[in-house]
This record gives sequence, structure tokens and C-alpha cells, in this order.
Amino acid sequence: MGFPMAHNLLNRYGPSKIVVNDVASEATERFLAEHPGKVVIAKSPAEVAEHSDAIVTMLPTPPLVRGVYLGKNGIAEGMRKGAILIDSSTIDPATSRALADALQPKGATVVDAPVSGGTMGAVNGTLTFMVGGDDEAVFERVKPILQGMGKNIVYCGKHGSGQVAKICNNMLLGITMIGASEAMNLGARLGMDPKLLAGILNTSTGRCWSTDTCNPYPGVMEGVPASRNYDGGFGVSLIAKDLGLAVAAANEAKSTVILGGIAHQIYNQLSTTPGYEKKDFSSVFKWLNDNGKRF
Amino acid sequence: MGFPMAHNLLNRYGPSKIVVNDVASEATERFLAEHPGKVVIAKSPAEVAEHSDAIVTMLPTPPLVRGVYLGKNGIAEGMRKGAILIDSSTIDPATSRALADALQPKGATVVDAPVSGGTMGAVNGTLTFMVGGDDEAVFERVKPILQGMGKNIVYCGKHGSGQVAKICNNMLLGITMIGASEAMNLGARLGMDPKLLAGILNTSTGRCWSTDTCNPYPGVMEGVPASRNYDGGFGVSLIAKDLGLAVAAANEAKSTVILGGIAHQIYNQLSTTPGYEKKDFSSVFKWLNDNGKRF
Amino acid sequence: MGFPMAHNLLNRYGPSKIVVNDVASEATERFLAEHPGKVVIAKSPAEVAEHSDAIVTMLPTPPLVRGVYLGKNGIAEGMRKGAILIDSSTIDPATSRALADALQPKGATVVDAPVSGGTMGAVNGTLTFMVGGDDEAVFERVKPILQGMGKNIVYCGKHGSGQVAKICNNMLLGITMIGASEAMNLGARLGMDPKLLAGILNTSTGRCWSTDTCNPYPGVMEGVPASRNYDGGFGVSLIAKDLGLAVAAANEAKSTVILGGIAHQIYNQLSTTPGYEKKDFSSVFKWLNDNGKRF
Amino acid sequence: MGFPMAHNLLNRYGPSKIVVNDVASEATERFLAEHPGKVVIAKSPAEVAEHSDAIVTMLPTPPLVRGVYLGKNGIAEGMRKGAILIDSSTIDPATSRALADALQPKGATVVDAPVSGGTMGAVNGTLTFMVGGDDEAVFERVKPILQGMGKNIVYCGKHGSGQVAKICNNMLLGITMIGASEAMNLGARLGMDPKLLAGILNTSTGRCWSTDTCNPYPGVMEGVPASRNYDGGFGVSLIAKDLGLAVAAANEAKSTVILGGIAHQIYNQLSTTPGYEKKDFSSVFKWLNDNGKRF
Repeated sequence: MGFPMAHNLLNRYGPSKIVVNDVASEATERFLAEHPGKVVIAKSPAEVAEHSDAIVTMLPTPPLVRGVYLGKNGIAEGMRKGAILIDSSTIDPATSRALADALQPKGATVVDAPVSGGTMGAVNGTLTFMVGGDDEAVFERVKPILQGMGKNIVYCGKHGSGQVAKICNNMLLGITMIGASEAMNLGARLGMDPKLLAGILNTSTGRCWSTDTCNPYPGVMEGVPASRNYDGGFGVSLIAKDLGLAVAAANEAKSTVILGGIAHQIYNQLSTTPGYEKKDFSSVFKWLNDNGKRF
Repeated sequence: MGFPMAHNLLNRYGPSKIVVNDVASEATERFLAEHPGKVVIAKSPAEVAEHSDAIVTMLPTPPLVRGVYLGKNGIAEGMRKGAILIDSSTIDPATSRALADALQPKGATVVDAPVSGGTMGAVNGTLTFMVGGDDEAVFERVKPILQGMGKNIVYCGKHGSGQVAKICNNMLLGITMIGASEAMNLGARLGMDPKLLAGILNTSTGRCWSTDTCNPYPGVMEGVPASRNYDGGFGVSLIAKDLGLAVAAANEAKSTVILGGIAHQIYNQLSTTPGYEKKDFSSVFKWLNDNGKRF
Repeated sequence: MGFPMAHNLLNRYGPSKIVVNDVASEATERFLAEHPGKVVIAKSPAEVAEHSDAIVTMLPTPPLVRGVYLGKNGIAEGMRKGAILIDSSTIDPATSRALADALQPKGATVVDAPVSGGTMGAVNGTLTFMVGGDDEAVFERVKPILQGMGKNIVYCGKHGSGQVAKICNNMLLGITMIGASEAMNLGARLGMDPKLLAGILNTSTGRCWSTDTCNPYPGVMEGVPASRNYDGGFGVSLIAKDLGLAVAAANEAKSTVILGGIAHQIYNQLSTTPGYEKKDFSSVFKWLNDNGKRF
Repeated sequence: MGFPMAHNLLNRYGPSKIVVNDVASEATERFLAEHPGKVVIAKSPAEVAEHSDAIVTMLPTPPLVRGVYLGKNGIAEGMRKGAILIDSSTIDPATSRALADALQPKGATVVDAPVSGGTMGAVNGTLTFMVGGDDEAVFERVKPILQGMGKNIVYCGKHGSGQVAKICNNMLLGITMIGASEAMNLGARLGMDPKLLAGILNTSTGRCWSTDTCNPYPGVMEGVPASRNYDGGFGVSLIAKDLGLAVAAANEAKSTVILGGIAHQIYNQLSTTPGYEKKDFSSVFKWLNDNGKRF
């Protein structure tokens, strides 16, 4: 994700220079080659921080986020006074809040800004950013930077609220996709034409993104993963990860998530089923209905 | 439902007379009083059939449908040659098909045409009719009659397909409402403003009718059951009934409905929980989150 | 099932003759060949009834039970005064009660007596019979007949109670087997020795038939389906059928069965998954944990 | 739990002295008063460690366990060479392993030894200890100490295995109790005598601890929580906590726990339902069947 985001940021937000750091050095070197004179490769997050007024991070897990910000050679060690720190990782709200608690007293402005829209959104610069931070004033300050990489930039409330919005949305998304798959599968097995059924659902109360924008029945819509053998799209492991964050947060908040809990288990199961690991999460349709024909 | 439907049919489709029959005689008498000179009360379904070229039925259960059509003093006994028989009851697809198999060889044209839109849709004449029958030609013949009572008239395929469309839609609806309730509840417990959260869901991939048209969180939308103590709307017993039909049909078709099966149990549980019996199905939000304060 | 049951009945209960009827005529002919002079083949259930004081039926579905008893050439047509009618089919309690309501007024004594113990129990004469009927006196009259085919003969209450006991037991069985599979799988993946884990469960509060008598983890116990590639035992389609009866009865009784409903869907899913159709229901362990290696 | 465990340890294992520490100082003072001349109150875990060759800890959460062992004034600071450290807390296996990794290189022998048996088991000295540690030799060394407080002392394998055994058992226990409740409720609603049904289940394949030892139907068994308004026993919050640990461990291990996940949500829901917070977990029966009559 980071590569196309940095590319768009450079072109659209237009900073004079961008300082990059990644454990995958071929990514940073390729980025340097593509943008000569505009890119500096830093040896560590701390070195990025020494040279930057605003930093965007995109990391896969909470411990890595903690490490990059607060660990050895981390951002905190090199941080400038008044730096803006934007973490776009999808992590648990508690870690986002802990980051702000640790770094704002030292003069930084911290926001959590997880994204939705996937790899294609990153490439096309059409990501949605869900932003949690102190107040609307902070939001207005980070917005132009995020507009360099995305299209919808939404203020969600205090620190961690970006994460909350993201996991609530994706939990519901995971549920509706299984529900849509069950409904489409049931209708087709009962003899209905799938396109006709999709048309009816989309103009009725069963309507949802999972029926009208990313229908899981192969051939019902063009250009969606279901119509290209479930390739591309939003991987089963990614939705499983987000549902894991949602269920864990729900448990701490004593908030019952019965369908969320089952959806989590189902995507977990898919993510360990051979052939499904790299597929779009709408492949849950095929899992319900594969009649033994795996990928 | 039958009363307002007959009222609209008379006014909008404009037959010279309408012959009515109901076990609740006060309903037919009140209807007669409201439409003097236009209404004939029949003593039985057979007597309705003797005087009618087209008949619309609206009944609560499959056995009652069978009885009214095929039982003693039923429609079959008095049926005119070429009669159009429209059953708007929500029942299992198999019974709809059985009705057609029994009556079409005797010269009738049978369609199943279950509705969505509830009591308000019946009153306002804005119901959706999902129609199953022989072909498009039959559909075109029944369409003007149904337009007398509804707004969207959709052809769904062969006999029983109207029922299939209805139960698939309502199964998905039942699932999305629980999912929306879990997501709204989780977000609010994690500190997000519910209106803000609803706004984000409604422009993101979690979007569904249950978030953008009938949001279950009290106060997020005006004019929805959630904002009037869950009164009115689509009762928990009705969605429980539809989910029961969906799950039964799925079991016969060997079509797995994991979330559908759980949603069914949850609405069943609500329909026997004191205070919830008459409430809108979005009250599942309160059930998840009542902190002990029942209705 | 019927063949070994008839065999044991003849040998152990010791009637002078036995009159048999089956749609599979090779079964009745083989039975005649094995027991010369003791067996009469009847052409219909009615003909069986004409020649018998007591009748045992074993059929797969409620409509077949209705047909054999109440249909054309059915038992009711040839029934002797005072005949004892024992239906060992596993069907819904309502059909069992309907049978009694139809036939007892005509002088028969009807009991429902579904079995557990499977094909092996039928062969070895160790079946359990769960008996529903008028009272203990009736139970004492049918008991000697059932002892000809089984070991534990249990009185369960009024008509239909045999079915109720059967479906309640098998619903719980279906749940504990999935639970045992999840627990054994989890422990093993977390590094515990499966035999050690089974030993601990079996002496702790997680103990159940599915851990101590038919453990689903391959190799933990000898002589169980899990240790012979899940062959033999109690097929996934059979438990799926019983769970279907349980869930349907629960829905009519407004009795919530959340885990029962999911277990039903899971076994349904297995029964349509290639390779699993003929396997023991403990193969749900493999389904949870097959790492892509199907049967 | 700690108080009666220490009491039994003193009486049965028979050390000359016991050094105690608790944040609740009235507990340690009462213990001192009850055992004059045998008890020393320490000001911190470190001080306990300075005076002890073997230490038993019993704490509610992973962070507290970490703090008591590795934090400021923790056991590690005062630890004697060759000390035996027994943690009886129920926590996640990963924390148990981390403790061993941190302290064994410094010369301690660490085991995780979570218990089952509840407060009554602690008082009566009949607890079961599930022990994880280096090998059988270590197990034999800690066994006499644990026999001072319990009855069944079981070796489960390497560090963390005690926790694994505990959470696998309790996950299955949580599932069987809901299953038993659904089955007993269903049978009773279908008209069966609950005692008769329990008797049949207990001699059939549905048999489990939750039917034959702690049946959730009120009045079926004497001396169980169900027969005293669900007071005493194993609280809903405790089983919810254990299921939370199980589901979290399953997610990390990519081990699907569909029924475990739902059971977790159900007990979470109970633990926030007024009246249920302090009740035995078999009160899930009442939750399924309360007909609106809450505690």
C-alpha cells in the first residue's frame, strides 16, 4: 500500500522532498529511482522524523506500530517539535490512543487515519481516510495531506475513533457479504435467475454494498472479484484480521457481537482453506456452494 | 393488510364491483359501508370465485392458503374458466407451486405475488409485489391489477419465484439488521457519536438498508421505529416467520444458511421476550444493548 | 436397518411367523431364503396388517410413514382389531401424534419408538428404543417385542415423546461433537498431545460422549470412526436430518436453539461437501482442520 | 480463592512458615490471626520471594501476573536461586510461556498450574491442577505442593500447556452447557418430563457433565445451582473470561471455533444482563427460557 500512497502524496500534495523508510529496501530504492531529486531514503524511523514536519505510517500490526513510533530508533527519538504524525495502519483503538498519550505531551500532533479502498484505492488515490484526533481543527490541518492520497476524508472523533469507524464498518461488511452469499445461493438453488434476484435485492430492503456493488455471485456484475474467479479485491485474511480487531474490541467493551463473532470464525476458516488464502472475501459464496470444486 | 389493499384496488384499478370474503365479518361489513354499491360480500371463497374473473388472496399460513383454494367451499369449487388467481400471502415456494399444479390444468392462471412494504405500504399503495408465474405474458396480464395496490411490480420467474425472492430478501434483511445493530452498538460503546458512525457506514462498504433507511440506533434517523420506541414497522414475529420459511427452504435445497439460521433463532427469541412481541425488528438493537431496561 | 432388526426379532422374540414387506423386494426375498418356513412376504402394508397382531415399521421420512399407515393399501386398510403398531422411524413428533390420533380410535395401540445405536446396534441387537405411547401399561406390552431387537427400552411419555427424546438427544450430540472437535483441534494446534488432552477433558467438566466414547481426533481412541478415516458410524446426512427435525420442532414450540441451529447448518454443509457424504459425523473435526486435504 | 488455598497448603503440605502478600491486607491479617506463629506478611512480591523456596500465585489477569513476577518490587527482584514458581492464574498460554522464558534462565523453575473446581474446590482442597512445565521430573517436584491444595494434579506438557488444557476444557464446557440448556428446554416445551429427559440423555450419546452432573433445568438434580436459583457455582463472568482466552488463542493459532465463538458472545451477553452477573453459568437455561421473568 505504501508505495502508491507515497507516489500520490508526492504528486498531489506536492512537498519539495519526501523522506522514506521501509524494511523492504528495494521499495524505497525503486521509489527514489522513479522520483529523482525528490526522495531521501532514511535508515530508520528516527531519521525520517529528524527531517520531517509530517509523517505518514502504514504498518500491518499493533506491535510494529508501537515499535516504529516508540521503540529503538523509532520516530519518538528523532521527532521535531510540532510534528504531525498520521498513522494509517488498521490496528486496535487502544494502541492508537496509547500512541497519542505517549507522543502528544512531547509536542506532536497525532491522528489515527485508517483507510478503506484497498490496493486499487491506493493506486488511484481514491482511498477513504477515517480520522481520529483531538478536534476538528487538527482534522483540518491533516486533511490536505490525506487528500494527497485519498478522496473521502472523514472526521470520526477523538483519538482511536478512526479505528473504531473502520472496524465497525468492516465487521458489518463481513456480515453482509456472508448474508448476501447465503441469500444469492439460496435463491439460485431454488431456481431463480441470479441476475433477477440481485436486481430485486438491490431495490428492496435486503439491499447492501455486498449485493449492489460487489455481488458475490459469479457473472451477476462485471468487474467485481466474483466475475474473475475471486481474484483481486479484499483478501480473506485482511477481513479476518479486521474482524479479529472488532471482536476483541467488542469483548473489552462488553458489546455483544453474535454475527460478528461467527463471521470472524468463517473468514478465519477460509483463510486457512487451500486455494482461498489469496482470494477476495466474496469467495465465501464459493465456500458455501463449491460442491467440492475448490480453487 | 387486506382492507387497505382492497380499498386501493377499488379506487385505482377501478373494477365495477369487488366481491369480498373474510373470516372477520366486521372487516367486510365496514368495507361495504365505505364503498356503497361497489362491494358484494360473499359467504365463502367458492362464492367469491363464482362471481370473479380475478381473485387476490392474502393469508397468514400455508395451510390456510391450501384450504381457501383447494378445501371445502374453496375457490376451486366455484372457479370460472380462465380466472386469474393471485396469492399475495408469504408462504413456502413449494405450496405456491402445488397450487399452480392443482389449478392451472383446470384453466386458471395462477401467480404467487408476495409483498414487501408492510402495513404502511398497503395503506399508501406503495407495496412491492414479487411475482412468480408461467412467463412474462402472464406477468403483463396481472401487472395492472397489482399496480392498483402497489408501486414496484417485479417478475421473478416461474411459479414460486415470488416467494423465493421474498424469503431471500427478508433473510438478508434480518441478517443486515442484526449486523447493523451490532456495529452501531459497538461503535457507540467505543465512544463514537452514533450519527457520525451512521454517516460513515452509509458512505462506506458497510452500507445497507438497515443503516441508511431504518437505522436501529434510537435518534440517529427521524421517522423510523428506532426513534419512536420501536413501535410500528415490521414486527419481530413477522421477520421470524419469514426467516423460518427461508431456513426450511434452504434445508430442503441443501443450501447452507449459517447466519440465516442464527438470525432466525435470535428473532424467535425476541418474539417470546416480554415487551418485544409487538415491536419492530430493529428492536434487536435494544435486545443487544438493553442493560436490563426492558420495554 | 430393517433386515437385521427383523432377523433379531425372529430369533429372540420368537414369533412362529413374520410377515414382511419392503419396496426393495430383494431384501424380503433374501430374508425368506435365510429363514425358510418362518417368513411370509406380503404385497403391501395392508396385507401385512391383515396377518399380524403386532407390526414394526422403519421408514426414512414422515410422508412415507403417513403413506404406509394411512395411504392406499396402507396398514389402516388391513388392520386387525387390537393390533399393536410400533413405528421405529425417526420423524417429527407431530406426525407420530397424528398417527395415534388416526388409528387408536379404530382400536389399534400405537407407539412411536425411534432408535439410537445405528446399523451396528441393529445387527448386534443392542439398539436403544425411546418409546412414546398412552401409558406405562402400553409400554410393558410393547417392551418384550422391542427387547427382541434392542437392549435399552425406555418409556418417554405420551405419543410423540419417543421422537422428542430422540431429537433432543441427537441435537445435543451434534453440538457436543462440534464442540469436542473445536476443543481437540485447538489444544493440538496449541501444542498439546491429543491423547493427554482427551484424558484431561474426560476427567473434567468438558467430558461428554463425544470426547470419552467417540473422540473425533484420529488415533486418540481405538475402534472409533476417527481412527479409521471416519468410515462407519453415524453418517453426516443422518445427524443433519435429526437436527432438521429438532430445529423445526423448536421453531414450532418457540424454543430457542442457537447452537442447535448452527450445528444443523454445519452438518448440512458437510453432507454436501464431496468426500464427506458417507462419513461419520465426527468428520466435522477434519472439516475444521483439513488443511486442504479432503477425503 | 487464595485464602482457602493457603489454608489448606499450610495444613496439608505442612511448611514451617508461609509468607503471604495480597493487595487486600485484611485477608493477610485475618490469615495471620488464624495461624499464629506460622504466617509472615510480606510487603511485596519481591519480599515474598526473598524468603521463599516455592511460591504460588493466584491472580485475575495477564497484566497483573506480569506485574507481580516481572514488575517493580516483583518476584524476580527477590527471587532465590532454584526457586519453584507456580502460577495458578488462568491466563493466556503466551504469557505463561513468556514468564518461563524470562525467569528460568535466572535459575527458577516455573510452572503454569491453573485450577478447576471453583471456590468450593479451593475450600475443600479438591481442586484439579493442570500443570505445564519442562518435564515430568519438574512435575513430580511441584506435585506434593499442589496436593496440599487439590486432588487431581495432571501433567499437561510444556510451559503454557496447563493453560491450554484449562481453556480447551472450559470452552467445551461452555458449549455443552448451552447445548444441554437448549435440549432440556426443547424437550420440556414439547411436553416431556424434564427428569425423564435428563435420565435418557444421561444414558445416551447426548450425555455430558452439563446434563449428568450440573443439569441446568431447575429441580432435575439436587444440590446444583439450577435448583437454588442459579446461586453459587461458576459465574457467567468467569466462563466468559475463559472463553475469551480460548477464542483469542484460537485466532492466533488459526484454529476455527465456531460454537466457541458464539458461546463466548452468549456468556458475554449474560454477564451484562441485569440479574445474571453473579449467577452460575447454567443460568443460560433461564436466559433461553425466562418468558420475561428475570431474576
